[in-house]
Amino acid sequence: MVNQIMQILEYLSEGSTICGVGLKAGIYGGSGFVGAELVRLLAGHPEVGATSVSSRGYAGRGISEVYPHLGVGGEYVEPDEIDASGLDAAFVAYGHGESAGAVKELLDGGAGLVVDLSADFRLPEVEVYEEWYGEHPVPELLGEASYGLPEVFGAPVGRLIANPGCYPTAAILALAPVVRRLQIRSVTINALSGVSGAGAKPDVRTHFMTVNENVSAYGITNGSPRHRHTPEIEAMLRRVGEVPEVTFVPHLLPISRGELETIVVELEDPGDLPESGDVLGWYAEDYGDWKFVEAQPEPPHISHVANTNRARLSAAVDRRAGKLLLFSAVDNLLKGAAGAAVQNMNLALGLEEDLGLEHLK
Amino acid sequence: MVNQIMQILEYLSEGSTICGVGLKAGIYGGSGFVGAELVRLLAGHPEVGATSVSSRGYAGRGISEVYPHLGVGGEYVEPDEIDASGLDAAFVAYGHGESAGAVKELLDGGAGLVVDLSADFRLPEVEVYEEWYGEHPVPELLGEASYGLPEVFGAPVGRLIANPGCYPTAAILALAPVVRRLQIRSVTINALSGVSGAGAKPDVRTHFMTVNENVSAYGITNGSPRHRHTPEIEAMLRRVGEVPEVTFVPHLLPISRGELETIVVELEDPGDLPESGDVLGWYAEDYGDWKFVEAQPEPPHISHVANTNRARLSAAVDRRAGKLLLFSAVDNLLKGAAGAAVQNMNLALGLEEDLGLEHLK
Amino acid sequence: MVNQIMQILEYLSEGSTICGVGLKAGIYGGSGFVGAELVRLLAGHPEVGATSVSSRGYAGRGISEVYPHLGVGGEYVEPDEIDASGLDAAFVAYGHGESAGAVKELLDGGAGLVVDLSADFRLPEVEVYEEWYGEHPVPELLGEASYGLPEVFGAPVGRLIANPGCYPTAAILALAPVVRRLQIRSVTINALSGVSGAGAKPDVRTHFMTVNENVSAYGITNGSPRHRHTPEIEAMLRRVGEVPEVTFVPHLLPISRGELETIVVELEDPGDLPESGDVLGWYAEDYGDWKFVEAQPEPPHISHVANTNRARLSAAVDRRAGKLLLFSAVDNLLKGAAGAAVQNMNLALGLEEDLGLEHLK
Amino acid sequence: MVNQIMQILEYLSEGSTICGVGLKAGIYGGSGFVGAELVRLLAGHPEVGATSVSSRGYAGRGISEVYPHLGVGGEYVEPDEIDASGLDAAFVAYGHGESAGAVKELLDGGAGLVVDLSADFRLPEVEVYEEWYGEHPVPELLGEASYGLPEVFGAPVGRLIANPGCYPTAAILALAPVVRRLQIRSVTINALSGVSGAGAKPDVRTHFMTVNENVSAYGITNGSPRHRHTPEIEAMLRRVGEVPEVTFVPHLLPISRGELETIVVELEDPGDLPESGDVLGWYAEDYGDWKFVEAQPEPPHISHVANTNRARLSAAVDRRAGKLLLFSAVDNLLKGAAGAAVQNMNLALGLEEDLGLEHLK
Repeated sequence: MVNQIMQILEYLSEGSTICGVGLKAGIYGGSGFVGAELVRLLAGHPEVGATSVSSRGYAGRGISEVYPHLGVGGEYVEPDEIDASGLDAAFVAYGHGESAGAVKELLDGGAGLVVDLSADFRLPEVEVYEEWYGEHPVPELLGEASYGLPEVFGAPVGRLIANPGCYPTAAILALAPVVRRLQIRSVTINALSGVSGAGAKPDVRTHFMTVNENVSAYGITNGSPRHRHTPEIEAMLRRVGEVPEVTFVPHLLPISRGELETIVVELEDPGDLPESGDVLGWYAEDYGDWKFVEAQPEPPHISHVANTNRARLSAAVDRRAGKLLLFSAVDNLLKGAAGAAVQNMNLALGLEEDLGLEHLK
Repeated sequence: MVNQIMQILEYLSEGSTICGVGLKAGIYGGSGFVGAELVRLLAGHPEVGATSVSSRGYAGRGISEVYPHLGVGGEYVEPDEIDASGLDAAFVAYGHGESAGAVKELLDGGAGLVVDLSADFRLPEVEVYEEWYGEHPVPELLGEASYGLPEVFGAPVGRLIANPGCYPTAAILALAPVVRRLQIRSVTINALSGVSGAGAKPDVRTHFMTVNENVSAYGITNGSPRHRHTPEIEAMLRRVGEVPEVTFVPHLLPISRGELETIVVELEDPGDLPESGDVLGWYAEDYGDWKFVEAQPEPPHISHVANTNRARLSAAVDRRAGKLLLFSAVDNLLKGAAGAAVQNMNLALGLEEDLGLEHLK
Repeated sequence: MVNQIMQILEYLSEGSTICGVGLKAGIYGGSGFVGAELVRLLAGHPEVGATSVSSRGYAGRGISEVYPHLGVGGEYVEPDEIDASGLDAAFVAYGHGESAGAVKELLDGGAGLVVDLSADFRLPEVEVYEEWYGEHPVPELLGEASYGLPEVFGAPVGRLIANPGCYPTAAILALAPVVRRLQIRSVTINALSGVSGAGAKPDVRTHFMTVNENVSAYGITNGSPRHRHTPEIEAMLRRVGEVPEVTFVPHLLPISRGELETIVVELEDPGDLPESGDVLGWYAEDYGDWKFVEAQPEPPHISHVANTNRARLSAAVDRRAGKLLLFSAVDNLLKGAAGAAVQNMNLALGLEEDLGLEHLK
Repeated sequence: MVNQIMQILEYLSEGSTICGVGLKAGIYGGSGFVGAELVRLLAGHPEVGATSVSSRGYAGRGISEVYPHLGVGGEYVEPDEIDASGLDAAFVAYGHGESAGAVKELLDGGAGLVVDLSADFRLPEVEVYEEWYGEHPVPELLGEASYGLPEVFGAPVGRLIANPGCYPTAAILALAPVVRRLQIRSVTINALSGVSGAGAKPDVRTHFMTVNENVSAYGITNGSPRHRHTPEIEAMLRRVGEVPEVTFVPHLLPISRGELETIVVELEDPGDLPESGDVLGWYAEDYGDWKFVEAQPEPPHISHVANTNRARLSAAVDRRAGKLLLFSAVDNLLKGAAGAAVQNMNLALGLEEDLGLEHLK
């Protein structure tokens, strides 16, 4: 309480204009699952004064009518009803390919900060983007984006943040400290995700009867694993060290939210195999100053991170077989998307990283 | 229909005594989940005339009272109320370590066939057993057991069948054809199992509130994976080819039944990496004569095998990373336990492998 | 076993043409959930030799491709590829309104027996049908349909069977014995259903994210309960006694299959309130000769009837409040649809009611 | 934001001692599900400075070790390690019968406020308590307790608050406005609850395999419904009007948290049957000033209130059958237990009712 007052008084004394009027935020694509989480988070954010929420499909309808669990007021509007120039922070939750154009318009239109939750600005090299996603609409902006995984790459800089994919968030957090310290020969990521990761659009894959009492691997095309988060994981890990091509196999779980990755690492020199405690130590070293990432001796459960902005990590060593196992769990909609987006906004605007996210630690 | 009549007339013409009176079966430990499945399967088996079912905890209570979904009559009895000498087939569904003594008594007491569903006779070498399970009560019987995975090792012979573990069933079926044909450098098995695999005893791990909306890796002890199915997989695969130490990481799923294994194989010579279609061909070649194992191009879903005696296999190739992926799904209580036990009994007694299991194909 | 042989020899000695070639069956609308269950049941039916399965959306595709869990061969065909005149039994699993025309064509075309799984022939009075469903396409056939709830109304007669709705099956089985014996003042049915009852079409209501970790009442229109099974329950109960207008409130459960109804009955004369044991006695009396309906002192669980053709009933008495409680559970796809349809076919063709359904008792 | 600052400055200007040091809270029985929620809520409560948490079974263990999802520090202590005289608010989450003695000790020991989450002080008449629960340990305190359902009975007064049962919370909120305005002839409450309502103790009833893919009625003893929340509902409703004996039938759902009640009301004079909109109007009238109760035309979903402190109400009218339907949904652990307890503490201490609960509206 006292801290909270101090913090507020500090703002007041700085004469910050933020405090006076509150930040203006805009959410583009607010009717998907990630958009709905953003709505909730920004509605409860102490520095955000007003949030406009667009949805092409639902414009004119009450947000609470579409998502009665949100408990917020207001209506969806058409995207062009939002004045970009007045936005301190814009969040774009469109599909891949669709997003880039909207981002460019927002930047050109004067939005103070744009957090893009699509994949459009996550891959630094246009060639890699085009191999996995097709032609990039505004390749000239690729170099301006800051990849928003602050625990690995520091607070985002500039006006454009590429918010990481949910799977890459869990993978990179677990792997980066290892990649920094060891020569890796092989990486396999066995990923498990709740259904919210598959989006709000009803189809056979997301029908309750398909998902319930079931689990299956997906993302296998013509006999090869081809999930688009693979190059993102590789590209970002290569910023911290050498990494071979990664095998990434996602599976769909009969749960609403949360992801667990069990990552198997083989080293160039099996003699370098650390103790599991060593790895926990590296995590503490690299992430100790950050509020949402922590490591523990026991493998994390999805239920320990669901509905939070946490990432929980652990490690084990299979000395018989000469392999290192890493475990990483996040909530795909929060630390894997909307929570990270707000955390990134906080950092980019010079606020505490957990502002508005305190109850999600 | 005509086939069915022909089959029956064939029995009749052979003057088989089986037909005249029906087989006598006994289930020891009939109140666990596997025991309950055995009760149901044997109650519907056309060659089984009578089944006695023991339970130390529930003796004197109606089977339907304990498992109302079974829809069978009869009462649990004490184990010693069953006359072993009169049994054509005895099924022992006790815990590991407990089972071996009961098996010995049954064999000594004159039971025609004993199918042991514990791990007690699965590991051929007593040293390996003792490393993972502790002292073996009757090591002298180890050599007499026939490992009951007929699709890989042929119909069981002799009076004692070691029914395979659920995870090893899925793993060995997927791996054996590959081990036979390629030089393998590394094997990692990511296994996912429904809660029935954790047994009927209520504890925190199986409480609905722990399992629901959750997934976690288990079997990690002091920072190392130590699931006891690991040596069983290794030992049995080494009967068909060379195999390195296997990394096995099981996870608990919020579903009632079914298992999925995603297996990652690296080869000694990456140049040997086959096409996924090649692997499907090997599966067809090796399993084409068997009724419960089939391969398909798409990764199997747990829901496609749950409540059946099927194993469904698939394969994919990650050529970028130089790895072979195998997928294997079974129902842990059926093909992974009780269904396989009945299939093994059928084969050992010279019956069709799917007798009484036709509706589970 | 001996019984089975005797049964078969009996057929043979009667020179039944059924035995010689097997029944020919046709399923119209075989790609919905009920159709898929019919495919499975008829594939395993000992008297059915061949089944043609139509689907307008999936014609030309393998049945196993659409429903990999079925484990059956064959392809979907267009409806007009099936020769109606050669069918011993046709099952129509179309939507309400669509079905009636197809039924008429089948009857005119010479199908031996038509089991209609829609609501089109369930309501005997065209006025009631039109109040709840709209215009009836072939009202002249209404009088020819036999309502297929044999435990209450006896074996169906004639060539057209109206297979009951899932909710009415559970409700009428629980209520009919009470209606026969007591003067009822008020009936409220609280019904709970798994998602398969909502159909295979993906929409927001059946999206995993809507259903999971949720329950809600549905069928409330403009502030009034208006589920179409209400008049069916009333009309059929009025064949056995006097019944007031019924309040019916269905709820959607986060499970795949099964229904539970908790029915509250008030009597004209509270002094007539029976003991719960009396009601169980009435159930035994009325249903003792039938194989799929049974009563028990404990309220039935959905899990005790799921994946079976059973109906399980129970009763309790709230003497403080002067009310009788009835509990009724069925699997909506089996006893509530496809299982009952096969049972009805069996009875209409003079076969044992449980032929091909033995493993579902 | 501005409001928040104003609110804080207001406290400061009042020189409240609360602000200076923070409230001291104690939780007795902090290792059950309700206790765990209290831990989380109080940890995030801006006026609570320190919370001691006792658990007889877990004393000495970290709270995060027992409930890793809570994300809080601290250890469980023995109850007598907490100094009652220093507590501004004590929460007792013991079982029924056990609680009363602890409450007396806390009051005698000088705790400023005691919120009892058991049933021990909910029933105002000792005779009724003893009929349903057995002998009352401290009947002399019964008269001092304030029933903590402020939306119906106003802010609690005195030092002892009886926190309502979860089912009664939902029932009384839906029924009280109707009881105030209409003459009621009959009430039936069909209640559905998630598994957290059954407690943390592992047993067969809460085993995942029992609950999953299942629903059943419970609380039926010897053929009669006998759930102990029945007299609580009756007693509290009789404070606002005349009410007949209530029929209450609970069912266990395969979800973690949340409750839905579908309540059927018959009136003395069917001519008094209101429109559903009238009932919504009464709800608005009675609850408009409160923050956690709201009504809406559509029946509430459990998912709309889960993980919140909300109660959502709706109404429908079955004019054909002459009945009024009320729908009420709450989260059993929050508005049905821990959330209400904090709300009650807030009101009793003169704080805003939603302090520390803002993100749960």
